Amino acid sequence: MTSERRRPRIAVDAMGGDFGPEVAVPGALQALREGADCEVVLYGDQARVDPVLAASAAGALAVDQVHCADDIPMDAAPAAAVRGRPDSPIVRAMRDHRERRVDAVVSAGSTGAMVAASLLILGRLTAAERPAIATFIPTVRGETLLVDAGANPQVTPALLLSFARMGTTYCRAVRGKESPTVGLLNIGSEPSKGNELAIETHGLLRDSELNFAGNVEGNEVLVGGSDVLVTDGFTGNIALKMCEGVAQFLKELARSGGLAAAELAGLAAFGSVVKRRFNYETYGGAPLLGVDGVAIICHGRSTQLAFTQAVKEAVRQVACGLPALIGRTLADAAREEG
Amino acid sequence: MTSERRRPRIAVDAMGGDFGPEVAVPGALQALREGADCEVVLYGDQARVDPVLAASAAGALAVDQVHCADDIPMDAAPAAAVRGRPDSPIVRAMRDHRERRVDAVVSAGSTGAMVAASLLILGRLTAAERPAIATFIPTVRGETLLVDAGANPQVTPALLLSFARMGTTYCRAVRGKESPTVGLLNIGSEPSKGNELAIETHGLLRDSELNFAGNVEGNEVLVGGSDVLVTDGFTGNIALKMCEGVAQFLKELARSGGLAAAELAGLAAFGSVVKRRFNYETYGGAPLLGVDGVAIICHGRSTQLAFTQAVKEAVRQVACGLPALIGRTLADAAREEG
Repeated sequence: MTSERRRPRIAVDAMGGDFGPEVAVPGALQALREGADCEVVLYGDQARVDPVLAASAAGALAVDQVHCADDIPMDAAPAAAVRGRPDSPIVRAMRDHRERRVDAVVSAGSTGAMVAASLLILGRLTAAERPAIATFIPTVRGETLLVDAGANPQVTPALLLSFARMGTTYCRAVRGKESPTVGLLNIGSEPSKGNELAIETHGLLRDSELNFAGNVEGNEVLVGGSDVLVTDGFTGNIALKMCEGVAQFLKELARSGGLAAAELAGLAAFGSVVKRRFNYETYGGAPLLGVDGVAIICHGRSTQLAFTQAVKEAVRQVACGLPALIGRTLADAAREEG
Repeated sequence: MTSERRRPRIAVDAMGGDFGPEVAVPGALQALREGADCEVVLYGDQARVDPVLAASAAGALAVDQVHCADDIPMDAAPAAAVRGRPDSPIVRAMRDHRERRVDAVVSAGSTGAMVAASLLILGRLTAAERPAIATFIPTVRGETLLVDAGANPQVTPALLLSFARMGTTYCRAVRGKESPTVGLLNIGSEPSKGNELAIETHGLLRDSELNFAGNVEGNEVLVGGSDVLVTDGFTGNIALKMCEGVAQFLKELARSGGLAAAELAGLAAFGSVVKRRFNYETYGGAPLLGVDGVAIICHGRSTQLAFTQAVKEAVRQVACGLPALIGRTLADAAREEG
């Protein structure tokens, strides 16, 4: 029996990120070299992408190209940029995704533009009120999926419940966890702890069909409190960036002088340990959950490894049909709740 | 000219904290040995405090004692405990403070009980709507005062403005900073970024008499964004505890095995650097701002050094008359806003 399924086509914004095509393109190609079951479609300025492709000996690889004459600057107002720059990689890739010419979009460009383009072009899944950014945080025990990492600064308890459902479906379908635990980021372990939002959300999660593990305090996150960690995009963004800040703090500490040689050596050795365990590159990018398609938002400082991992992550999500699964989960829950 | 001013009397909860009188008592006495201009009054079970005092050769030091037959457990419901345990160190010390028999209260007991006892016994300053916990975070450039660190999970923009005023008055009076900068913990630098609370607070701070330095993102906190960092107690508590979590993460990493000897040595050397710079002990405790008195809330894991520093911090606040200064700042602002 032959399969007529075509290989997934993963759109990669070749221009996005701090380092441009010189990092995005070889990073994406590396995924193919490592056997990722997909084609890579590079969206960007052909004049800049071609030389990188030529230097990459990509002849035998499944690479396609879509020339984009425009681009969205990192500081542009997202919705206006998406409307006003139809020939930018993010907008062209999202349009092609909507028309099923590609199956996923990977970009290290503006996070706001990625969210806006996903919403305006792909649209929300029918039962999803708002999409959320899901970010993996490495922990002592493995990893925790933080939802939302910044797409929704203002939320409701019902919205947080939907984030928990989307995160659970993701962990089940993409990570193979049968019954992922859900934690609520909060300032104490008791159900009565927190602000009004947290207290009401605690009740909704407890009464839901989810595997709710209770509140998780800030100091418990990195130890590994739960598979999914639910919070609003304001708190989630600050919690994530505090972690980033610790890394910066250590670098500055080393630079600021006054450290003994053994201490500097200690810092360096320590850095390698942390890099191995506590590194966004491992995960490649953050999936946007709740939109009608696969959108992977990469860090602006993404390296080649990050792009490689992001392409592989996109392939996994396409392979299991993640958007449809999330849509079904949310629709089932909406029916249950009548 | 002789001064008739009596030396400040600092009440120390000898029973509070994870390590009891064996750590709290010598820690407090050390402040006297290092020349702190005060008397120390130890509140606690005499049967447990006496032997520690005897072993401390405290004969020449200005130490007084108040026997307390009861204590507040760490997990007790705060307000009920304060009402139901009049003979606990926190409650007796606060009552003595209200009656001016002591001038400050230092405790590493339950944070909730300290906040509740301050509110119920000392009371709020007239113009203060709610007290806030102020915590120093060490940064690359020095330190930043986070207000609120957890006393108020649910706030309003006007309340955050009052926290900024209290923090500014503290930095000016106790730390000698002439025009402390105020930052707002937020998820982007633009005034339009954040949730509704952050956006409205940004406007209030910008239009105020304060030295507002704009939004500070999570990754900027430890680099040293501003002298005062304003946030609600929910976000502040999680941000602080995420930092604590990084330290725990490192410990677990070392314990979990799989590290090379050089990496373990590096971790240890590095730990000493962090301990020197990034250590709550340096600050002793977190002042509770906005109550009619001086209350220093110490970490449950407080060491001797932490108690020593907390007593010195209490002396500084008493010496400059901090509560009265904060009361005047808030009253002046209320009049201006008329």
